[in-house]
Amino acid sequence: MPEFLHLLPPREAYARLLRHLPDAEPVAETLDVVHALGRVLAEDVRAPHPLPEFPRSSVDGYAVRAADTYGASESLPAYLTLVGEVPMGAAPEFALAAGQAALIHTGGMLPEGADAVVMLEYTQTAREGEVEILRAVADGENVIRVGEDVAEGQVVMRKGSPIREAEVGGLMALGVESVRVARKVRVGVISTGDEVVPPSQRPAPGQVRDINSYTLSALVEHYGGEARRYGIVPDRFEALREVAERALSECDMVLITAGSSASTRDMTAEVINSLGKPGVVVHGINTRPGKPTILGVCDGKAVIGLPGNPVSALVNGYMLVAPLIERLLGKRPRPRPTVRARLTVNLPSQAGREDWWPVRLLDGEDGEYRADPIFGKSNLIFTLVAANGLLRIPPDATGLSAGEVVEVMLI
Amino acid sequence: MPEFLHLLPPREAYARLLRHLPDAEPVAETLDVVHALGRVLAEDVRAPHPLPEFPRSSVDGYAVRAADTYGASESLPAYLTLVGEVPMGAAPEFALAAGQAALIHTGGMLPEGADAVVMLEYTQTAREGEVEILRAVADGENVIRVGEDVAEGQVVMRKGSPIREAEVGGLMALGVESVRVARKVRVGVISTGDEVVPPSQRPAPGQVRDINSYTLSALVEHYGGEARRYGIVPDRFEALREVAERALSECDMVLITAGSSASTRDMTAEVINSLGKPGVVVHGINTRPGKPTILGVCDGKAVIGLPGNPVSALVNGYMLVAPLIERLLGKRPRPRPTVRARLTVNLPSQAGREDWWPVRLLDGEDGEYRADPIFGKSNLIFTLVAANGLLRIPPDATGLSAGEVVEVMLI
Repeated sequence: MPEFLHLLPPREAYARLLRHLPDAEPVAETLDVVHALGRVLAEDVRAPHPLPEFPRSSVDGYAVRAADTYGASESLPAYLTLVGEVPMGAAPEFALAAGQAALIHTGGMLPEGADAVVMLEYTQTAREGEVEILRAVADGENVIRVGEDVAEGQVVMRKGSPIREAEVGGLMALGVESVRVARKVRVGVISTGDEVVPPSQRPAPGQVRDINSYTLSALVEHYGGEARRYGIVPDRFEALREVAERALSECDMVLITAGSSASTRDMTAEVINSLGKPGVVVHGINTRPGKPTILGVCDGKAVIGLPGNPVSALVNGYMLVAPLIERLLGKRPRPRPTVRARLTVNLPSQAGREDWWPVRLLDGEDGEYRADPIFGKSNLIFTLVAANGLLRIPPDATGLSAGEVVEVMLI
Repeated sequence: MPEFLHLLPPREAYARLLRHLPDAEPVAETLDVVHALGRVLAEDVRAPHPLPEFPRSSVDGYAVRAADTYGASESLPAYLTLVGEVPMGAAPEFALAAGQAALIHTGGMLPEGADAVVMLEYTQTAREGEVEILRAVADGENVIRVGEDVAEGQVVMRKGSPIREAEVGGLMALGVESVRVARKVRVGVISTGDEVVPPSQRPAPGQVRDINSYTLSALVEHYGGEARRYGIVPDRFEALREVAERALSECDMVLITAGSSASTRDMTAEVINSLGKPGVVVHGINTRPGKPTILGVCDGKAVIGLPGNPVSALVNGYMLVAPLIERLLGKRPRPRPTVRARLTVNLPSQAGREDWWPVRLLDGEDGEYRADPIFGKSNLIFTLVAANGLLRIPPDATGLSAGEVVEVMLI
């Protein structure tokens, strides 16, 4: 029985996979911005014009020439002639001369000649046609200048940025209604195993329903890919090779979950080696769960052999497949959010191995969370259903102690 | 000019809103599980049968009767008669008698009579038809018992749980191919302001494009709602009242973003009061940005008046609208993930007010992040485009110091 003689740490394994993948640009497609939420920009976006396009007041008050207010105070107000009110949504039809002021609302356009706005609360109107200024303002005070948000031609969004709520707003502000985004990464998903039947089928004794095709498809969808399921393939080299070859020609990457027995795991490696060069580049990762994971590259596309057991397959999907999809989308790396929590029990771990434990986060004292590990054999999918986080035990630790503060990745 | 005399802290404001909302069950609909990723369960799910349905081996090895291995060691092996191999995907056609063993693969079904599995590495096969057991196993060792993952009839997923990858897998494992989920919350989105024009239109001097309809629609979609845009309404009471009334009748909640001037903010409150009882329940929140936010309830539905400025509207969308949508979906609260980072500069704050600062997370030393606040007037949408997080300054702080470790909510 061939064993995993050269188990690589997961980060090293992933880095080795990347070294064998070509540095290709993602394929781009054009989408309406209103349908692009969550997608990744395939090109930089430049501002076609400045924002704002006219000087705007940022407060309710009086547009003035700042120089007219110098020295003004409550005891010694400056008296300015009121010449009108700036309408919302239109340019004022008057200009401001020295000694004049105009009522203006937040967002209103400054009249020509004005260079600052005095907030309403620092003014007084005692006599018709006149306003008292109780506080001096500086040139530009309470004014948003032309181009203060963005200048014309400025790169306002960079290639690889995800389109979030703010990007949607920024694009609309500039009148940009369609964008070039990375096409969804097409991921072929293949299940193998003579014991595996489709979920719609009632399993006979000895059979189990296919879980991995569906958890991995969901993961692919979640992280920006488009899953294509190739069904369940029996444990025969030729059958798997044929389906994998088709998937590889139709997709950007391929996932194969092994049957649960050792012989089918070896078959996955053989199939990957038969599909193209260099074939298998990592055979076994020093992690739990997920040791039997195989990473391959065939003619420029990743082919990943995941363990057959559903928890291993999904956890390694989070660790390896999700970042790979984002990389193929050209997505800029962003910080991974975590939840800090206090561990409820001691957790053992083997030095040199990276462990990922499913945990349940519970409300603790003082708004603190407690991380309660879920114990259970690793092929029980409902241990992950009960979990809302994964706790990493780094390779240099020999375990974690109850009461320790740990960082939990939400799943 | 009416001011905000009773500014509530944001949590208190939100709690007050909830007190006025009825405790209604979400409307449910039936969906195929493969299309239900991200949706929220509207009913508990029970296991129609146990999992696994037959005792399975969790390793590659030999199925045995544990009693036959007691006392076995490398120096004194137990010798068992090999009676066959368990096929994958079928029930073994033989039973195990005392003194017998059968080759079994991970996931294989235990033959009748067997109660444990000895791992391959603790066995030896020197003579045909015989296997040497080098280590004793306990009853049940390396076996997944019937119902060990879930028992028949057990509640395996609770109402209000989001459907993640693991739930998809668990449902498939049980042959459950469709589920009852909460229908998407319908959220009406109304923009107001005489100065606001649709993004497709080139703004004349004094006009700006509608941003809020689109950022808020994206936010609604992101958090599990379905946005219905009612367009841009001019700053007239009757016009706004008419559109808001229609939106309220067609949706589960309504968002109105005010024009930027004070008078239109007051109009939003008047419209909310005219739509149903109790009307406005919170007028102004002690937070920055977002002070002029109005929370209302009209005949059992929330109507939220958000500030017209796009940054305030979106930040308060994250803080108030997102949790409200999740509540209407019946979604169980889950921990909010954050990123810990070291603040790069001092940040001032007013005691008693809760501030949310847009920050850019930068890679720092030792894998630590630095949180770099983005300074800019709060109505510049591109300050949020440049940000990837929001930093909360709690009401009891009078600011934060450079070098402090802070928690940043990713946006």
